[in-house]
Amino acid sequence: MTDAPVFRRLCLIGIGLIGSSVARVVRQRGLVGEIVASARSAETRAKVMDLGLADRVEADPATAVLGADCVMLCTPLGAYPGIVRHIAPHLAPGAVVTDVGSVKGCVVKEIGPLIPAGVHLVPGHPIAGTEHSGPEAGFAELFEGRWCILTPPPGADRAAVDKLAALWRGAGSMIEEMSPEHHDRVLAITSHLPHLIAYTIVGTATDLAEDIKAEVIKFSASGFRDFTRIAASDPVMWRDIFLNNKEAALEIMQRFSEDLTALQRAIRRGEGDTLEDLFTRTRDIRRRIVEARQA
Amino acid sequence: MTDAPVFRRLCLIGIGLIGSSVARVVRQRGLVGEIVASARSAETRAKVMDLGLADRVEADPATAVLGADCVMLCTPLGAYPGIVRHIAPHLAPGAVVTDVGSVKGCVVKEIGPLIPAGVHLVPGHPIAGTEHSGPEAGFAELFEGRWCILTPPPGADRAAVDKLAALWRGAGSMIEEMSPEHHDRVLAITSHLPHLIAYTIVGTATDLAEDIKAEVIKFSASGFRDFTRIAASDPVMWRDIFLNNKEAALEIMQRFSEDLTALQRAIRRGEGDTLEDLFTRTRDIRRRIVEARQA
Repeated sequence: MTDAPVFRRLCLIGIGLIGSSVARVVRQRGLVGEIVASARSAETRAKVMDLGLADRVEADPATAVLGADCVMLCTPLGAYPGIVRHIAPHLAPGAVVTDVGSVKGCVVKEIGPLIPAGVHLVPGHPIAGTEHSGPEAGFAELFEGRWCILTPPPGADRAAVDKLAALWRGAGSMIEEMSPEHHDRVLAITSHLPHLIAYTIVGTATDLAEDIKAEVIKFSASGFRDFTRIAASDPVMWRDIFLNNKEAALEIMQRFSEDLTALQRAIRRGEGDTLEDLFTRTRDIRRRIVEARQA
Repeated sequence: MTDAPVFRRLCLIGIGLIGSSVARVVRQRGLVGEIVASARSAETRAKVMDLGLADRVEADPATAVLGADCVMLCTPLGAYPGIVRHIAPHLAPGAVVTDVGSVKGCVVKEIGPLIPAGVHLVPGHPIAGTEHSGPEAGFAELFEGRWCILTPPPGADRAAVDKLAALWRGAGSMIEEMSPEHHDRVLAITSHLPHLIAYTIVGTATDLAEDIKAEVIKFSASGFRDFTRIAASDPVMWRDIFLNNKEAALEIMQRFSEDLTALQRAIRRGEGDTLEDLFTRTRDIRRRIVEARQA
C-alpha cells in the first residue's frame, strides 16, 4: 500500500488469535504507522517480540496507550472494565477506542461511561476466528472476505467510525453497522447458541464411561468431530460471552429446546414425514450460505 | 494392485455418495472383477453409465444381483426390507450380502431372516461421508484412513467376513468388528445426536423472520455455518436412521437435554466458574481426536 496509514499508532491490548491477526495484517499492508502491544503475561510479551508482532510491547496497558490514536481491546470481555478504568486517564485526546468482542451491548453500557470526553468509543466485532488461541495462532488472512460489524453508539463521531471502518476494510473485511442490541440478537443465533450446543454435546460425551468415550473419539468422523472443533475455543472468552449476552442467549436456547423436544417427540412416535420435512427445509439455508460465499 | 480381485462381481444397489465412492475406489484399485449397479431412477442409471461407475446398470435389483458374489445395499435404510425380499430368491449361493447403513441392529433383525441359507449377511458401516448426495458426489478417497465397522451376526461365516474386510481395507479403511447393539449406541452419540442437533438449530433459524434470517446467513461464519453443513445431509437417509435407531437416539438426546438445561441454569444464574469448567473440560476430547488423526 502506498496510501498513508489509517492510524499513526495502534495499541493492541491483549494479543491472542484476533489481536495477533490484526497485528500481522496491519503490518503487512501498512495500515498503521506503529504497533504497540500490551499483554499481561511475560511469556506472551516475549512471544510477541519473537514473532515480530509489534514495535513495542508493554506490561502496563496505561503505558501502552500513551500517544496511540487507536486503542483496540482484544482480551476476553470480562477484562474490559478493569482495563478501561485503568487506561482512561492516559488516553490521547481524539483517540478511537474499539474492541473485537463477541457481545456489544455490554461494551456500550459498561465501557461507554468510562471513556473520557474527546475520546471516541466505536465497538467492533470481526466475524472471524478459528478454534486455536494465542499469539502464534493468528494469521494475516483471517479477516479476508469476512464481515466486521461496528456498533457506534448514538452520536458517535463519524470521522472516528470511518477511520475504523477503513482499517478493517484494509484488513480485507466488509463492514456492517448496526445497533448493539441487534448485533447481540443476531450473534446469539449465529454464534453463541452453536458454541453452547457444541460445548454441551462434547460435555455429554466427556461424562461417558471411558470405554465408550474411547470409541466416540475413534469414530468421531461421523459428525461429532465438527462439534469438538467448535468446543475447543477459548474457555474464558466464551464464559464472558455467555455472562454478557445472557438474555439473548437464553431466549434462543429456549426456542432451540422447544424445537428439540418436538423432534424427540416425532422420533418417539415414528413420524417419518415430520422428520423428512424438517431435514429438507434445512437444506435451503445451507444453499443460501454457499451462495453468499460464507461457506 | 496385482493381487486377484477380492470379489468377482460386486453388485451395488443404490449408487449415491457412498455407493459411487465404493464403485470408484474398487475400480481404481482392481478390488473387484466387475461392477453391476442398480438404481431406481432412469436419471441415476444414465449418470452411472456417463460417469463410468459400473460395467452394467440395471433397473431391477433382482436382475442386478444375478451371479454376484458380493451384494452391497447403498440405499436409505427404509428401502432395505422391500429390496431384500425382492432379491432374496435370486442371490447366488455363497454370496456375501452387506450394506453401508448407519444403523446396524435393524439390519440384523429385519434383514437377517430374509436371507436364504448359504448366503452370508455381514452388515457394514463405513464411517465416512460428506454433506453432498448423489452419484456425482462420490470420490475414490472417501474411505482413506477412516474406520469401517462390521457387525457380523453370531455364527457368521468367517471367510465371508474376512473377504468383506479385505475389500474395505483395499479401499483404505481400518476395520473394527462389534455387535450391532454396541454400534448403534456409539453412533447415536458420534453421529445421530450431532445430526439431530444440527438439523434442530438450522430448523430454529429457518423459522425466524426473514430479515433476521438474512443476517443469520450473512454472519454464519461465526459458528452457525458448520451446523448447516451437517444439516444439509440427505433427508431420507437421516429420516430412516432416526426411525431405525429410536431407542439409542432418544436416550442420548435425553442426556443432552439435561446437560443443556443445566448449562442454561448456569447462564441464568451467572455462574462463570461452571461455564469455564465445562468449556475447559471439552478441550481434552478435541485433543484426543486430533491425536487419533480423525480431526
